[in-house]
Amino acid sequence: MAAETCSALTLAPLLGANSTAAAQYLCSQFDTVSLQLTDAKSAIDSTYLLFSAYLVFAMQLGFAMLCAGSVRAKNTMNIMLTNVIDAAAGGLFYYLFGFAFAFGAPSNPFIGRHFFGLKDVPAPGFDYSYFLYQWAFAIAAAGITSGSIAERTQFVAYLIYSSFLTGFVYPIVSHWIWSADGWASAARSAPHGLLFGSGVIDFAGSGVVHMVGGIAGLWGALIEGPRIGRFDHGGRSVALRGHSATLVVLGTFLLWFGWYGFNPGSFITILNSYGPIGSIHGQWSAVGRTAVTTTLAGCSAALTTLFVKRLQTGHWTVTDVCNGLLGGFAAITSGCSVVDPWAAVICGFVSAWVLIGFNKLAEKLKFDDPLEAAQLHGGCGAWGILFTALFARKKYVNEVYPGREGRPYGLFMGGGGRLLAAHVLQIVVIIGWVSCTMGPLFYGLNKMGLLRISAEDEMAGMDLTRHGGFAYAYHDDESSSHGGGPGLMLKNVRVEPGTTPTPPACQT
Amino acid sequence: MAAETCSALTLAPLLGANSTAAAQYLCSQFDTVSLQLTDAKSAIDSTYLLFSAYLVFAMQLGFAMLCAGSVRAKNTMNIMLTNVIDAAAGGLFYYLFGFAFAFGAPSNPFIGRHFFGLKDVPAPGFDYSYFLYQWAFAIAAAGITSGSIAERTQFVAYLIYSSFLTGFVYPIVSHWIWSADGWASAARSAPHGLLFGSGVIDFAGSGVVHMVGGIAGLWGALIEGPRIGRFDHGGRSVALRGHSATLVVLGTFLLWFGWYGFNPGSFITILNSYGPIGSIHGQWSAVGRTAVTTTLAGCSAALTTLFVKRLQTGHWTVTDVCNGLLGGFAAITSGCSVVDPWAAVICGFVSAWVLIGFNKLAEKLKFDDPLEAAQLHGGCGAWGILFTALFARKKYVNEVYPGREGRPYGLFMGGGGRLLAAHVLQIVVIIGWVSCTMGPLFYGLNKMGLLRISAEDEMAGMDLTRHGGFAYAYHDDESSSHGGGPGLMLKNVRVEPGTTPTPPACQT
Amino acid sequence: MAAETCSALTLAPLLGANSTAAAQYLCSQFDTVSLQLTDAKSAIDSTYLLFSAYLVFAMQLGFAMLCAGSVRAKNTMNIMLTNVIDAAAGGLFYYLFGFAFAFGAPSNPFIGRHFFGLKDVPAPGFDYSYFLYQWAFAIAAAGITSGSIAERTQFVAYLIYSSFLTGFVYPIVSHWIWSADGWASAARSAPHGLLFGSGVIDFAGSGVVHMVGGIAGLWGALIEGPRIGRFDHGGRSVALRGHSATLVVLGTFLLWFGWYGFNPGSFITILNSYGPIGSIHGQWSAVGRTAVTTTLAGCSAALTTLFVKRLQTGHWTVTDVCNGLLGGFAAITSGCSVVDPWAAVICGFVSAWVLIGFNKLAEKLKFDDPLEAAQLHGGCGAWGILFTALFARKKYVNEVYPGREGRPYGLFMGGGGRLLAAHVLQIVVIIGWVSCTMGPLFYGLNKMGLLRISAEDEMAGMDLTRHGGFAYAYHDDESSSHGGGPGLMLKNVRVEPGTTPTPPACQT
Repeated sequence: MAAETCSALTLAPLLGANSTAAAQYLCSQFDTVSLQLTDAKSAIDSTYLLFSAYLVFAMQLGFAMLCAGSVRAKNTMNIMLTNVIDAAAGGLFYYLFGFAFAFGAPSNPFIGRHFFGLKDVPAPGFDYSYFLYQWAFAIAAAGITSGSIAERTQFVAYLIYSSFLTGFVYPIVSHWIWSADGWASAARSAPHGLLFGSGVIDFAGSGVVHMVGGIAGLWGALIEGPRIGRFDHGGRSVALRGHSATLVVLGTFLLWFGWYGFNPGSFITILNSYGPIGSIHGQWSAVGRTAVTTTLAGCSAALTTLFVKRLQTGHWTVTDVCNGLLGGFAAITSGCSVVDPWAAVICGFVSAWVLIGFNKLAEKLKFDDPLEAAQLHGGCGAWGILFTALFARKKYVNEVYPGREGRPYGLFMGGGGRLLAAHVLQIVVIIGWVSCTMGPLFYGLNKMGLLRISAEDEMAGMDLTRHGGFAYAYHDDESSSHGGGPGLMLKNVRVEPGTTPTPPACQT
Repeated sequence: MAAETCSALTLAPLLGANSTAAAQYLCSQFDTVSLQLTDAKSAIDSTYLLFSAYLVFAMQLGFAMLCAGSVRAKNTMNIMLTNVIDAAAGGLFYYLFGFAFAFGAPSNPFIGRHFFGLKDVPAPGFDYSYFLYQWAFAIAAAGITSGSIAERTQFVAYLIYSSFLTGFVYPIVSHWIWSADGWASAARSAPHGLLFGSGVIDFAGSGVVHMVGGIAGLWGALIEGPRIGRFDHGGRSVALRGHSATLVVLGTFLLWFGWYGFNPGSFITILNSYGPIGSIHGQWSAVGRTAVTTTLAGCSAALTTLFVKRLQTGHWTVTDVCNGLLGGFAAITSGCSVVDPWAAVICGFVSAWVLIGFNKLAEKLKFDDPLEAAQLHGGCGAWGILFTALFARKKYVNEVYPGREGRPYGLFMGGGGRLLAAHVLQIVVIIGWVSCTMGPLFYGLNKMGLLRISAEDEMAGMDLTRHGGFAYAYHDDESSSHGGGPGLMLKNVRVEPGTTPTPPACQT
Repeated sequence: MAAETCSALTLAPLLGANSTAAAQYLCSQFDTVSLQLTDAKSAIDSTYLLFSAYLVFAMQLGFAMLCAGSVRAKNTMNIMLTNVIDAAAGGLFYYLFGFAFAFGAPSNPFIGRHFFGLKDVPAPGFDYSYFLYQWAFAIAAAGITSGSIAERTQFVAYLIYSSFLTGFVYPIVSHWIWSADGWASAARSAPHGLLFGSGVIDFAGSGVVHMVGGIAGLWGALIEGPRIGRFDHGGRSVALRGHSATLVVLGTFLLWFGWYGFNPGSFITILNSYGPIGSIHGQWSAVGRTAVTTTLAGCSAALTTLFVKRLQTGHWTVTDVCNGLLGGFAAITSGCSVVDPWAAVICGFVSAWVLIGFNKLAEKLKFDDPLEAAQLHGGCGAWGILFTALFARKKYVNEVYPGREGRPYGLFMGGGGRLLAAHVLQIVVIIGWVSCTMGPLFYGLNKMGLLRISAEDEMAGMDLTRHGGFAYAYHDDESSSHGGGPGLMLKNVRVEPGTTPTPPACQT
């Protein structure tokens, strides 16, 4: 809302002799109006940011349902608990350390160092709503990783990696790319130069969030190895299907819903004119366009997956379509604000193939990721980063990242290769950083025997052995007339294949 | 926010001799403020519209859960996939064609012809957020229809009708009634006259969305015929109960939640004064009133259904109450913005009886609609259109559809019969248009053998035969230690009534 | 947005001789701007309040899912129906009476007496959006109580108590504490004095909503007695586990999501400057802080519960963590707007212990509350009220409840004991009022045989005996080829423990 403010010095001579007081009076009126407009902007932007944060938080519910539906029934409570704890532990750690490492300003290009425990908040540009929004992002990264190592990981390992990821690994990356002090930031504060004269345009975090979560999951899943039975004695892949497609669809739709907070919300503010003031051109329009590119990328990825999978398997598979959809979202997340809707359709189309390709590769390499999280968030996230460097449009880049003339944009849009160089470097650095931090962590946990559960526990399911019982009891004999433990144990014995050929109910 | 703007020509002589420059300076200051207020309005209205659009999108999740819970377990993945694909295919088709047909301006009264592929967007009044909002409406119509033809329709038929409905049939109707160029629009741009001097007040689409979806479903279900077993050999009705009341309630509440985007959101903007500026009278209040009328109509319909069904069946049936509630919402959708809260209570009360009546009729005619979608969205939608013509209040009509003096309003409120005439015509035209487009489409698909699945597939369930397996695996023997297909087939054989009298578990 | 308005009387002499007309012209321009800003404020605040109301409504869905998951499968439809009816009957009763009793102004300190049936709405400060927001609160109270008396209560008793609670008992309490006329209100309109010079700071209703619902549930559950089998012949506690942990987690996350409407939304407006206008200090920031304190209290309660329960039971139990989390939310609800984030962490930590303690006590006293609602909402709610009186910060108290100099604040923050005195009185009065109204109601219903279902119905489950069937049918033989009733009855016979030792499936 930049506009010339009223100047009594200018106005007084215009009004004529002896009119200094009148000019001051009038200008002070204008100043009051201007400040009232500033307050209105604060209220509008805060409303926008807070409700966006709530939507991003809803993604945590989406993750929980998606993960629950994608694992076997016997591990349902385990995976859901990790999602609840991601949010809860993430809340405390991000409050104590994470937010400070990520956005504490002023700072150096590598790590932030203010706002520990929200000290000195609110400060200009750093209000509570901003913390809440960033917290919701941080727990999303940890949620991604939990999918990769599902069904075979000790709960204590979850607690450790989740706190480390939310409190340290992820905040550092977000500092590099999103903080005004970060070395790779596309909005780096002057007079510091931009990386390759460009900086990284990872608008809502295909790299910062999705690749970080995905690469962390990759190492976890690699070090743990596949679940028992995932590959048979001949080495062939055996699908260990999740226990509820309904939960998968519920989770996917909730993630879609929440992504409207994730991508358009990343503008942080909505009241910001791009064109001449009073025109239709402003952040409100860019926000809407971002919601549209996000939608179209997901739609195009879902349809592509639908038909490709139909050709490959002969089935119309809803869970594959859901994953394809989410891959499209993960990919567009980087460039959603700076590409045209038609480009988003291409982004989604390619991301469907990327996911299918990485899934094929994972199968070949006997890599087992129950949620396809490493492939989806890591693979499609990486593709999204490249896509942005190819399709970012000049006009949008300059509107969303203003104040740097002649900055590079998408290679295919005539913007040269410097953005692509920055983005390739981003991919390399994220892989490197996450591998160097999370890799040793998972390796160490494994060495100390804290990572993978025992084979017996894995066969019986973690809910029964670690979480107090089975998640479901649809029939009375499963729940009433006896306490949790024993009855459920009995039930488990009955359903464990091969152990008791005759079910108890028939023993009379 | 219309108000007299500062005029230097007027101000200069008031300030005295030689004060033209002062007047220009002061007025330019006021102009700046005015433009800043315009920017603020853009940001506020966009925030309002975008979050409303997100809520409407959440209805798609509501539909998915409602539909899933209302069908038998063996068709769960099928119906959920249709809901995902409605959104995805709808996204692409509405982007490419639908939005242009519906709102492309300038255009003729019958079909729009701009904005294909969002070309020339943003334009004044046509921002990306408006597209997103209308897309979420378009996919709702297709979602309604999918309920009517559930559990017996080939997936390829879904793809075809859904694209046709979202991309053509529905956009045309919305053009007629909601576009400023539409022949039946109550907000038709001058100098064109209004239909019967009134135009159709279908504020959020009891007709445009619900009747269109319902009538399309009616033809689909009629042409396909009832599901196997829905009526026994004696012709008596046999309830084919859905597999999860929990999902029905989940879906219903999500639809209720989303309806707050659907109805109040249809104002598109919220910053618009009705009374003298600075008073409490404005669109913000009408928006709130619309949320209240929507709520009360649903509440009253739910309670009416509860007690009537109790008397009829002896049970307090939650799924019937859910459908009654949704019928109340479908009915109030037309008049929500122009009726008083007390009238909304009447609207809901009657709509409960309408739904019960149409359900009785459907049973008599051996019409099988697994979601009662034709009865609910078609029947209660039609009632809602009539209700509006009876109860629309003069004050509200003139506030919501301003600028036409002496326009008709509700018959019972003293507003004459012209609104009723327009609304009867709306009902006839929608039935006619949808019947003439979707009827032949379903007929043709049927003739070509593309509509209904085989009896074997219907008995076995579509999930198993077309979608790669059963949606649920609550026990280990259903999922682990063998791949998806064969194990699930075996399971199916076991549960198919009559095929294996002795369950495997007892064979020892 | 208070600021000096333009005064032509002041301006005219400043402008010089003969300038009255100029001064009037200029001031009328400023007046117009000021009124436009007022309209903008109306639109912003209404947007904020409406979307907050929608979030609070989403909590009803959260309750429904949490309750459903926490009861046995055989009572799923029963409990979900009560949640739907809470909202629906609550809608009508709150529209007709409740809102008037609560907020009808002007009124006396004990009960409101305007706005019956929304007559005279909108009035300044009382728009439709405010009614909608308060309705969503009212039904939350009833939802809490339904959990306490789950699995053994006649449906007609639900209808009666729910209407009475939503239409009378709860509105009176909210009048006392939240209406500007209420005797205990911290924002009581001058010249009336504040209770203990302070009034009660129950910002979003740890007492008004949670204790009211919890104490009502306490009496209901006490009078009904425990469910059959909840305590065995030796008097030992037997866990009657809920049928779906997934629904518990789904409901918990939805409640968390909705709580962002409940707590931050209780500011009602967001555009309100606290500091000098144009600064970063305003309600938008306090709203964000409230979202943060809410989050942190829940997180800290969840983590505390996780570890304490691990030590107690040896399990990592997700349902306990969910309840702990919700207890933290119920506790922070009172003070969320007036405490620092670090205090919120303490609030959550203690509330976890409060819940664990009350649960132990309940077990000892053989008190059976299937949802732990009395312990959670009553116990943690009461703790939250005390917590506020201990930790409320001077600055925040004066910003959120302005205009009374020298008002007391938290005891531990140096604000003296008067706030604590008011809050202890609040706890006593709420317990008294709810006990004196709901106690006799439940007692009377019990005497008339309208409260508890028969032992046979309880064993068989209410879904089967009162609601038309079982909530789930995952396998074909449970749903198809026969009508609802008989087939489901048969099924029930099979699963009822002890009745048929040999299941029908094995009788060949």
